[in-house]
Amino acid sequence: MSRSTPRSPHDAAGDGGFESRAVDRGILRRRAFNLRWAEQPDDVIPLTAADPDLPCPPAVRQAIVEYTAAGNFAYGPAAGLPAFREAVADHLQSRRQTPASPAGIQATDSAASALFLVARALLEPGDEVVIFDPVDFLFAASTEAAGGVVRRVPFTRAGGLDLDRLRAAINPRTRIIALCNPHNPFGRIMSPAALAAVAELAERHDLWVLSDEIWADIVYEDPCPSVAALQRAISRRTIIVGGFSKTYGLAGLRIGYIRTDDPALGERIFACSHAEKTAFGAATLSQIAAAAALRHGQPWYRAFIAHLRGVRDHLCDRLDALPGLRCPRPQATYLAFPRIEIPGLSAEQLTERLLRHARVAVVPGAARWFGPGAEGHIRLAFATDRATVDAALARVEAHWDRCITADPAATA
Amino acid sequence: MSRSTPRSPHDAAGDGGFESRAVDRGILRRRAFNLRWAEQPDDVIPLTAADPDLPCPPAVRQAIVEYTAAGNFAYGPAAGLPAFREAVADHLQSRRQTPASPAGIQATDSAASALFLVARALLEPGDEVVIFDPVDFLFAASTEAAGGVVRRVPFTRAGGLDLDRLRAAINPRTRIIALCNPHNPFGRIMSPAALAAVAELAERHDLWVLSDEIWADIVYEDPCPSVAALQRAISRRTIIVGGFSKTYGLAGLRIGYIRTDDPALGERIFACSHAEKTAFGAATLSQIAAAAALRHGQPWYRAFIAHLRGVRDHLCDRLDALPGLRCPRPQATYLAFPRIEIPGLSAEQLTERLLRHARVAVVPGAARWFGPGAEGHIRLAFATDRATVDAALARVEAHWDRCITADPAATA
Repeated sequence: MSRSTPRSPHDAAGDGGFESRAVDRGILRRRAFNLRWAEQPDDVIPLTAADPDLPCPPAVRQAIVEYTAAGNFAYGPAAGLPAFREAVADHLQSRRQTPASPAGIQATDSAASALFLVARALLEPGDEVVIFDPVDFLFAASTEAAGGVVRRVPFTRAGGLDLDRLRAAINPRTRIIALCNPHNPFGRIMSPAALAAVAELAERHDLWVLSDEIWADIVYEDPCPSVAALQRAISRRTIIVGGFSKTYGLAGLRIGYIRTDDPALGERIFACSHAEKTAFGAATLSQIAAAAALRHGQPWYRAFIAHLRGVRDHLCDRLDALPGLRCPRPQATYLAFPRIEIPGLSAEQLTERLLRHARVAVVPGAARWFGPGAEGHIRLAFATDRATVDAALARVEAHWDRCITADPAATA
Repeated sequence: MSRSTPRSPHDAAGDGGFESRAVDRGILRRRAFNLRWAEQPDDVIPLTAADPDLPCPPAVRQAIVEYTAAGNFAYGPAAGLPAFREAVADHLQSRRQTPASPAGIQATDSAASALFLVARALLEPGDEVVIFDPVDFLFAASTEAAGGVVRRVPFTRAGGLDLDRLRAAINPRTRIIALCNPHNPFGRIMSPAALAAVAELAERHDLWVLSDEIWADIVYEDPCPSVAALQRAISRRTIIVGGFSKTYGLAGLRIGYIRTDDPALGERIFACSHAEKTAFGAATLSQIAAAAALRHGQPWYRAFIAHLRGVRDHLCDRLDALPGLRCPRPQATYLAFPRIEIPGLSAEQLTERLLRHARVAVVPGAARWFGPGAEGHIRLAFATDRATVDAALARVEAHWDRCITADPAATA
């Protein structure tokens, strides 16, 4: 795209604004918490929590400013603003071919809190939830906070979910099969065949399917089908959790949603949330922002994906070229999750050495983050500009030898 | 104040903007939910949920717009932005003479969710909480959601808390004395002597004091002292819950806080919140708005109180003049809570007839809202403009005879 055909006023250089305007590190040092810029020493580049360095869509900023002008921030409706619920339902239906209606959407104050709410609503103490191994720590944390027990089933980059192990994990205490699709940290999209197998098991054993699809719109070639899109019966058993922190950079606004397709199930979760007592819900202004992202943020979104695809290819290929590291490109997410192929070098060790020598912060593939199946990997989030990625890569490459060689003086 | 000395650009008529600009009913019909304008038939005036019809301080709008300009809404810190925690601590210290430090402030997504969190953090199933009767329904709801049991102690308009009954209510299962100070629905401020008696009991029986002070800044003559300001020992036992929906009209932004003065207690509540896992907290933009209200909203706040004082006097005196209704002016809050002195006329009946005949919605002094001690009262929230109050009063006065006379055809 040439300079003479910008896509938007924010895109004078014709690249969606993602390359020409570097990320604003001054803002990030003040605003990006949760392991990132505001919580790191000044000389560290954080590729940690999965939260973009890049600003949100201009349409979101505009919607916030317009809504704020009237100065009225009265109590919103308990389940969410109609405009929010409609925008989410339209998005799921029209862009993801997933059954959804506004009445089946509940606004939540993040996808994370949605996971905790669903676990609290559906589990009795001792009930079991099948989760992937590895997978984002929130699945185990939310299950355990509700008194539930997790059963981990292997999920691999090459093969996806181990369906035989899934079948073996189901027992009379099982209540939920929890999917992370696309998968964090492998960035793999579940195949239609795997989803169909999950659906068949859920039907046979009368289980709920909890489908965390927060990454479903960060895809590079193929779309990510939802298990709920397979057929009506499984749609009614499926709770989809989604959010706006990954795709639109709105983590700080604390906005997510729960989609159900069974009024009794939706009512059960809603009642457990205490939203009707004003003790749970999402800020109206955050809902306005999220609805604007879905309704008016699509040109920005397409440019963001194009940018991320370039960063993904560049980053993964250079990491893959490092001796002792294998880094295939993910199908989805902006997470690189390379495998360490150096005997005796643990994820925690490599993470510590990357921080110490290269001053690059990553997340270790540690059991406390992802479960035991993550060991031997590190995770790098790459939703930043090319300059930041290049700076991080240059440091990692310059210090790689020290990072992979045992330091006799080090205690780590 | 003359037209030639406006207080602010929003105050051309010199009245703080609270009289010259009527409330915007168009906005309220779209935005004010929770029993209010957006949920009522078009011809009904709602004096229901305690949420202002009036717009928030201009300084809040300005802070939101300024923060939004950078377009970065990254994850905030789990316990709250430093600017928010500092603003709240400064406010409690400097304006309310209450011990507070930024480290002891946790941002919550409303005062209501703060109450639920504190109950969950401090109660085991079967533990007891002493609450007032009547009092806002959230005390019982949050206790029961945590598996706790409430013991109600009478609180009257004339006498405040019944200290003998409080002493009698404490037993080995008691964990918390929960104060609502100022009191919703009576608008009474607890006396220093009553607070000292509560503190003495809490010390003697090793109890927590949960002090809901969300109304503490809506006061007309005397300030509202916090129980935590009495002395250091009781400060350490006291959890103060506050918010921004009553004073600054920010209910829709879902922003409140918990103040503790004991690091172990604060840590216990914080851990229970799952904020560190990103599953709980307040939107950063809402924290920015709330901090701006405390830092820069004080001229607006003073004008708001002056306006409310006039509305209070006017409304209460006219209600008090109705035959069969006694309506003293509250010391605090923008809640009128008149007593019905007509034998056989219940709060639910009067509420229903006011809606049917006068098309004015109020909240009945029903057990489900406030506990059994509220029976025989109705609650009217008056944080609106004078024109709306006058319109409601004119309707109530015009239809009062029908409202207090049994209608043989009615089933109510």
